[in-house]
Amino acid sequence: MIDAEYIHDTVIQNDNKIILLVVDGLGGIPSESTKLTELQTAKTPNLDKLSETSSCGLTLPVAPGITPGSGPGHLGLFGYDPLKYYIGRGALEGLGIGIDLLPGDLAARGNFCTVDPQGNLHDRRAGRIKTELSKPIVNTLNGIEVASCTTDVFQVQDYRFVLRMRGDELSEHIGETDPQQTGVPPLDCLALQPGGGPTANYVNRFTSQAKELLHNEPIANMVLLRGWSKLPDLPSFPETYKMKSSAIAAYPMYRGLATVAGMEIIPTGATFADEIQTLKDNFNGSDFFFLHYKPADAAGEDGDFEAKVKTLEELDKFIPDILALNPSVFAIAGDHSTPAVLASHSWHPVPLMIHSKWTLGEHNKGFNEYDCRFGSLGTLEAKYLMSLILAHSERLTKYGP
Amino acid sequence: MIDAEYIHDTVIQNDNKIILLVVDGLGGIPSESTKLTELQTAKTPNLDKLSETSSCGLTLPVAPGITPGSGPGHLGLFGYDPLKYYIGRGALEGLGIGIDLLPGDLAARGNFCTVDPQGNLHDRRAGRIKTELSKPIVNTLNGIEVASCTTDVFQVQDYRFVLRMRGDELSEHIGETDPQQTGVPPLDCLALQPGGGPTANYVNRFTSQAKELLHNEPIANMVLLRGWSKLPDLPSFPETYKMKSSAIAAYPMYRGLATVAGMEIIPTGATFADEIQTLKDNFNGSDFFFLHYKPADAAGEDGDFEAKVKTLEELDKFIPDILALNPSVFAIAGDHSTPAVLASHSWHPVPLMIHSKWTLGEHNKGFNEYDCRFGSLGTLEAKYLMSLILAHSERLTKYGP
Repeated sequence: MIDAEYIHDTVIQNDNKIILLVVDGLGGIPSESTKLTELQTAKTPNLDKLSETSSCGLTLPVAPGITPGSGPGHLGLFGYDPLKYYIGRGALEGLGIGIDLLPGDLAARGNFCTVDPQGNLHDRRAGRIKTELSKPIVNTLNGIEVASCTTDVFQVQDYRFVLRMRGDELSEHIGETDPQQTGVPPLDCLALQPGGGPTANYVNRFTSQAKELLHNEPIANMVLLRGWSKLPDLPSFPETYKMKSSAIAAYPMYRGLATVAGMEIIPTGATFADEIQTLKDNFNGSDFFFLHYKPADAAGEDGDFEAKVKTLEELDKFIPDILALNPSVFAIAGDHSTPAVLASHSWHPVPLMIHSKWTLGEHNKGFNEYDCRFGSLGTLEAKYLMSLILAHSERLTKYGP
Repeated sequence: MIDAEYIHDTVIQNDNKIILLVVDGLGGIPSESTKLTELQTAKTPNLDKLSETSSCGLTLPVAPGITPGSGPGHLGLFGYDPLKYYIGRGALEGLGIGIDLLPGDLAARGNFCTVDPQGNLHDRRAGRIKTELSKPIVNTLNGIEVASCTTDVFQVQDYRFVLRMRGDELSEHIGETDPQQTGVPPLDCLALQPGGGPTANYVNRFTSQAKELLHNEPIANMVLLRGWSKLPDLPSFPETYKMKSSAIAAYPMYRGLATVAGMEIIPTGATFADEIQTLKDNFNGSDFFFLHYKPADAAGEDGDFEAKVKTLEELDKFIPDILALNPSVFAIAGDHSTPAVLASHSWHPVPLMIHSKWTLGEHNKGFNEYDCRFGSLGTLEAKYLMSLILAHSERLTKYGP
């Protein structure tokens, strides 16, 4: 783990290159009809062949039975204990749309909502108002001024936005204004811990101005705010592991997560082919590359088994390109499972393989949930992955004399 | 784990029914002659068939190499870290005979013993005096009155009894009076921590009266007291997991363990057939059922391999009755192994299976120590079982955004 003293004391520097490919939502469970998982169904000759000369296993993203969100899922793979380090909803939503979040900034997930003439909530999502209709309302909210603090509203999609507050000593220990039910008014923001009072006051000044500015809107006539959070103060990934560390990810949230860990972001395009090209073009410039593949998770979330199978087959075609770069360590992991059968993230352990020159004869038969069960890595908490990767890249000296 | 914040924050309520069948002493080790364990030897077609559509694995009750008593064995299965929560010998013995233990009550395991005319211990178990002979002596001890505290003595069996003390601010941090050797007198009870003084005085007043009252007894002429303990203050199982939770157990100790966890007890008869009927009759009344099967442990403790095999074959016949109730989750676990070869509890990991609609194609071959080794659940600490059960019953939302 990144904050374990034994890591600090044993990491050494060298020039070996590492690629960590994170396949979002990689793991699955069998379909009812075929009793095979997405990975077992997909034709992935390159992944399967690579597994024959890799160390295989399964990662538990957080703990048995626990289904992680994207934040805990990635923090674990980067070596952070996801039960110790937490990225709140507001901050993660901000990372997801790529806004600039500085240490000390406070972010909330916002909803437009509809209140009736008495001020009681009628619809907590303002009829799921479309982005083009909510855009001018976001602009209106950006006219709000709250003394002692800067407020900025960023559109996410439809009825969703992020509120970023920037000021001195903002507290995340303040209450949500969303009562999570209709027929009652939005809540006043309350301090949940001593010291939260001033921040709660700023929020209430913001929401009362929002109410005035929006009261003539037909649907989105009020806001609800929740998930108050700042960026967590994480130990630095590149400093701890003593590697220049870069992230290549088409989606802003994963770039954001890498930024929080202290990695550099290499700009790339919208597709995985773009990411691969970016990796090739920049391979000499870093020691460690976090490469993110999103489509598997998206198809799993859609509950589309066949589509998820296809995304894995698509991914497989890029494996030779990555191997051609001849990294000293090539690890393939997932932040969590997203079984198409469940159409959501799940708690199931996730296939893992680590390829290096030390992994030649481990008798693996394929890269999937079943075969990885029998791999030499066993089932391990994701937070230990980076120690293994560092070991394979010859960056960990002996612990203890 | 029951006291992990991530559990509190992610548990939701629904109507899915869960049955946790605890087969006491389930696990075994191979017999010398056949090299097969009790479960491998037993003809258990229903368990084996169920394993084909279940998630299988092995539980470590406490930690590798550690042999648990019934208390830690069950606390782990209920989600309590057995290294954090502890039920002392006196309290567990009290639960075992079904006496009323209230918070604050102090219980000790008592032995009748024989002292010589000089007051030195001659036999720490009073010749293993039979129950019918010790019964009137128990009655005699119930005549003792100690100022500021109520003392009650309950017969267990033969030379064994439980002393329950009820009063204000009793301390469990007091010494045992059993010197664990003969030729010396019983020990005075000493305070082991500041604040233990008054309780130690009550105990010494009790034992000196016992000595006077029993001095004419031919064998059981004195008492030894050890295992001072109160009920531990456990987080509530039904409140944490937000499920109405019931226990069906023919033996009082397991009802007692369920009570300590906050479960309701459904009265039942003396056999497992009675338990199954009770389950059927009450299946609509609860969300979670802890069902306890005792005979496997008893046969294992007797060192009777064939008898243990038979108890498992007997159990197997009831599996269709349980499945006919169509629970959303049916988990079968053991509190520890009791290999007939060892004739005692042991440290060996215990077979586990979890059946739900999400466990259709995991390629398990049977329910026994060998095949479960290759299951998708791997070898996990028993304290994580409840998280998995909750996940399979769709009661755990995502951890983290």
